[in-house]
Amino acid sequence: MSADRHDADGHDADRYDTISFLSDYGHGDEFVGVVHSVIRQIAPAAAVIDVTHEVPAHDVRAGGLALARSAQYLVPGVVLAVVDPGVATARRAVAVEVGDGASILVGPDNGLLAPAVAMVGGATRAVELTSTEHRLESPGPTFAGRDVFAPAAAHLCRGVPLDALGPEIDPAGLRPGVLPLPQVEDGGLGAEVLWVDRFGNAQLNVGPDDLAPIGLDGADRVAVTVDGSTRTARRVGAYADLAPGELGLAVDSYGLLALILDQRSAADELGLSASAAVTLAAPDADSADPSDPGRTSPVHLRKRA
Amino acid sequence: MSADRHDADGHDADRYDTISFLSDYGHGDEFVGVVHSVIRQIAPAAAVIDVTHEVPAHDVRAGGLALARSAQYLVPGVVLAVVDPGVATARRAVAVEVGDGASILVGPDNGLLAPAVAMVGGATRAVELTSTEHRLESPGPTFAGRDVFAPAAAHLCRGVPLDALGPEIDPAGLRPGVLPLPQVEDGGLGAEVLWVDRFGNAQLNVGPDDLAPIGLDGADRVAVTVDGSTRTARRVGAYADLAPGELGLAVDSYGLLALILDQRSAADELGLSASAAVTLAAPDADSADPSDPGRTSPVHLRKRA
Amino acid sequence: MSADRHDADGHDADRYDTISFLSDYGHGDEFVGVVHSVIRQIAPAAAVIDVTHEVPAHDVRAGGLALARSAQYLVPGVVLAVVDPGVATARRAVAVEVGDGASILVGPDNGLLAPAVAMVGGATRAVELTSTEHRLESPGPTFAGRDVFAPAAAHLCRGVPLDALGPEIDPAGLRPGVLPLPQVEDGGLGAEVLWVDRFGNAQLNVGPDDLAPIGLDGADRVAVTVDGSTRTARRVGAYADLAPGELGLAVDSYGLLALILDQRSAADELGLSASAAVTLAAPDADSADPSDPGRTSPVHLRKRA
Repeated sequence: MSADRHDADGHDADRYDTISFLSDYGHGDEFVGVVHSVIRQIAPAAAVIDVTHEVPAHDVRAGGLALARSAQYLVPGVVLAVVDPGVATARRAVAVEVGDGASILVGPDNGLLAPAVAMVGGATRAVELTSTEHRLESPGPTFAGRDVFAPAAAHLCRGVPLDALGPEIDPAGLRPGVLPLPQVEDGGLGAEVLWVDRFGNAQLNVGPDDLAPIGLDGADRVAVTVDGSTRTARRVGAYADLAPGELGLAVDSYGLLALILDQRSAADELGLSASAAVTLAAPDADSADPSDPGRTSPVHLRKRA
Repeated sequence: MSADRHDADGHDADRYDTISFLSDYGHGDEFVGVVHSVIRQIAPAAAVIDVTHEVPAHDVRAGGLALARSAQYLVPGVVLAVVDPGVATARRAVAVEVGDGASILVGPDNGLLAPAVAMVGGATRAVELTSTEHRLESPGPTFAGRDVFAPAAAHLCRGVPLDALGPEIDPAGLRPGVLPLPQVEDGGLGAEVLWVDRFGNAQLNVGPDDLAPIGLDGADRVAVTVDGSTRTARRVGAYADLAPGELGLAVDSYGLLALILDQRSAADELGLSASAAVTLAAPDADSADPSDPGRTSPVHLRKRA
Repeated sequence: MSADRHDADGHDADRYDTISFLSDYGHGDEFVGVVHSVIRQIAPAAAVIDVTHEVPAHDVRAGGLALARSAQYLVPGVVLAVVDPGVATARRAVAVEVGDGASILVGPDNGLLAPAVAMVGGATRAVELTSTEHRLESPGPTFAGRDVFAPAAAHLCRGVPLDALGPEIDPAGLRPGVLPLPQVEDGGLGAEVLWVDRFGNAQLNVGPDDLAPIGLDGADRVAVTVDGSTRTARRVGAYADLAPGELGLAVDSYGLLALILDQRSAADELGLSASAAVTLAAPDADSADPSDPGRTSPVHLRKRA
């Protein structure tokens, strides 16, 4: 990751060799390609890994969650994240160092970076990106990904010191990500869908330990209420024992509970999308009856490939 | 492709320098980016080429066909293919060597790899991926692409020998791909759509030689029946002579026959999708009449760019 | 960009190290991955940057505009562009040198390359790609991106001289791109939508200077007529002062005027898509009244991230 070569400017050359890039740019326009091009001209040796660019437009929460899910798997280096509905309003452009320089996250200070920063132990330093020397000139208003964030990320790879990009700011003043916590309520646990993936698995903001306060940590079945309608989900320890059509509640590959169906979309079945409210509770005697065909049916639970 | 450097572990270092990666992960989530990240941390010098990630979710047949179409063009090295509806059920995770080590295909043993393996001459060796040393630990149930297949592919690039990844298995016991063959039927050739591409060309499971048994190898026109409705397609040797709206039957750029229209989607026009049944037969006298405007109209046939 | 190493064939080895690749192939099929594979086998050291592959199928104009918008940001080297509805008809396959060899654009001679070539100062040389030695053999009709254009681009990177790929042709004879100019009309400026981006911003074929002839260069408000229906847009100098729902007219990050809304799609709101006609004119007294709630409302204008 680091080298002690120095370039003509006296920087550590190629201090980081990888930029992990996430955005809401989509693939329909040339935004992603232009950002790659800008990076390659400043830091030709840096590899750019596209984490995803299909974060829903302007959805800071979804982008922050995708980044947090990815964080522990990303190559140490620079993370470039751009979901920026408030570009050129009061929000600052920032670079946030974590792990005393193990990695640096570059993006808008709007909460997008916060969940990932928290996942890897918090910020050790941060700067506001104000250096005009490390930007591109824009023919019109700033396309910040192209003109501000990508050049900053590339210069960091080349060994430009963090504090050359702008004044240090207090990491404690960075805008936090707002992640919903499950709430113990009368009659159950008020939860929320964090993410619906391509396969229709609905990840909740609930870890396995969160079921203890409502007495469901050892339960075989859990009542799942969405929009006033309740179904019973069966707890499964691995994606391997659901019958066709049977609703399952399983720890997913990120360690959180997810609602799942075998080779079908649980989200479609239950009408769930990100941010939807879901209540988990003990099933009442009737619905817990495994012979109740209206609520459950025998199944093999699917693991995501 | 190969080098005789040895790394600290005594492996041939960087035995393969390219991983060709195909999946049904889509681009909406961060799955593809996370797999790239995992690979880069194990085998930083390996290039990853994304073949496609938009195989329909869980569609092993479509993934296997895409891989087979690509096979002869892929860089020798490692192929990582993940379309895995049965993850963590009985299906095995495997690595299949072809060409005595020219390339190795890594993926689930569910028929996905089989058509490509057959295209390049068959398997010379195979192992089941059981080595826990060459996996990532998963926080929950396995996300096999991230935790099993990507690490295996990357370790193979780094020179880890095939048999270090798990016990050898008999290649003859690998699950075959089930590719439909055209059937000579009463009155024609029963065929099937293998693939509808972005431009609406409908590739059939029929090579030019397959028309001989039904006496159509020299025919200028062929009756095409879909869902009980028959149209006449004109055989064209190159994509250059169809009139607007005229249906064509042409050898495509993979050597198979495809139904095509000029700058329009033949699949939309005929209501075709992958796996649809199509019957090819001799046109009867009436419909072969080139002046019949209800069946044919003058056209320029399009070649795909 | 250049090196004085020579390979076994006496070529300058690795004359270009980057191929910027744009097409209408989409990501649903394996076309893009196969082209990457073909390039890597001929020019393994070349990096391929995907500009975009979601140009609408066969839309030469949209592809040409995307390439022109990108042109000034692309890495000097080879540009591979394929939007080719007339493949294998009369159109030629060409390579067009710009900047006396600073870059070479490879693609069909159908107007796709022309706007980008013009943006960077025009062609200095051009050849028709006829050399069979620098093509792949095709099992059927040519898939030109795979069999003709990608090999040509890769061979150029490897140092194969331009004129080895085919006979020189007169750059003046290349097919021009047809870009619409705004027209001063009775009562306003007849304009056209060039591009609707992912965020719904509608870029017009109008620069800020084009408003002078109709006396609107200093205007705070502009009447925007689409399909006989007129709304008032407010001129904003930066993406920062539109109220929710207020229509804005701003110079975009490419230096052209665009119709915008704050965090919503202006194109959806106005029913605009690429090529739509838009008339800009002076608002009449009534509609210019800022208190008119039917026409305008206070807003913050969004900048694209």
